[in-house]
Amino acid sequence: MEDSMMRGSLDDIYFPGLSVQTVGFVRNSVEEPILRADDEGITMDARREEMRRRIREIKSAVSEIVIKEELLELLDGIDDFSHLIVLYWGHKVPAQGRLLTRVHPMGRKELPRVGIFGTRSPARPNPVLITTVRLSSRSGNILRVTGLDAIDNSPVIDIKPYVPERGACDDVRVPQWMERIQDEIAAEDGSDA
Amino acid sequence: MEDSMMRGSLDDIYFPGLSVQTVGFVRNSVEEPILRADDEGITMDARREEMRRRIREIKSAVSEIVIKEELLELLDGIDDFSHLIVLYWGHKVPAQGRLLTRVHPMGRKELPRVGIFGTRSPARPNPVLITTVRLSSRSGNILRVTGLDAIDNSPVIDIKPYVPERGACDDVRVPQWMERIQDEIAAEDGSDA
Repeated sequence: MEDSMMRGSLDDIYFPGLSVQTVGFVRNSVEEPILRADDEGITMDARREEMRRRIREIKSAVSEIVIKEELLELLDGIDDFSHLIVLYWGHKVPAQGRLLTRVHPMGRKELPRVGIFGTRSPARPNPVLITTVRLSSRSGNILRVTGLDAIDNSPVIDIKPYVPERGACDDVRVPQWMERIQDEIAAEDGSDA
Repeated sequence: MEDSMMRGSLDDIYFPGLSVQTVGFVRNSVEEPILRADDEGITMDARREEMRRRIREIKSAVSEIVIKEELLELLDGIDDFSHLIVLYWGHKVPAQGRLLTRVHPMGRKELPRVGIFGTRSPARPNPVLITTVRLSSRSGNILRVTGLDAIDNSPVIDIKPYVPERGACDDVRVPQWMERIQDEIAAEDGSDA
């Protein structure tokens, strides 16, 4: 019974509203996810260096978010925000990936294995992925953004304005493995001292 | 046809994976949402002052996030993060609320009417709501957090670690109406100079 709740059948009875509609799609030149989920956990598509190069590439690439025409009005006034939070669906995550429990972050065996909720792995019970992006421009139902780490054709499920919460996240602490990953990316990138 | 896509029937064919499972539930003493959606748009439950008092109350209240027992392993190592991003479902948003296009932010008629994607209104095509919270403690499958603006029994659909992106969101710009709301809350709160 616990298992079938996990598969959502009872949830559907209790919360019939838990169905997600796409509100648009991502258009960019990124065709494959950086990380791939398989039965063993997350493995890397390429060597670590290649992975970093791709992260940097994705972070600087321009993506278009094409919002469905019938939702055009929902974008009114969005141009007044410099940054947006994009919620999209990890549609290349195989069904199996939603059952993962613990992984080595980014598939790196030298980093400690941690629970999925403590990682940003796209393979999670609900592959709802979040990125904060910069809004470069908008024309009609098309938003041009930078920093979106989604791949081409990802279904978009929500756009929210990014509003820094004043003082809400002082003294943030992250584990050492996460510091390490961030340091490595920053070093490659030159974006952080 | 565009309409039926909006209702998700064709989406279900194209993206059969777009079904959301609850991974847990919120437990706190907040029984009603601050804002209510009705046919006219968002209206306030109470006067503006009352609303601010409640925002402050919610922001400081302790909530429990009860993760399903069978997902316990997914929490491994989460204690190493000070802050988490909680994705939950706005289960009190009526079906009608998902069809709103433009609203006065927080139901305040003196603020400009803006498109839903430019607001944090819970009434949106997919009521997937996001809050960054502080993790106070964890015992087993129960996370005690502060700053969660969800109401009691909200279905939780994901937990992600909060990782400040270095330099990613410099020079953030928000519209004047949003500045004003933030100023008012901060003034009440005393949390920001």
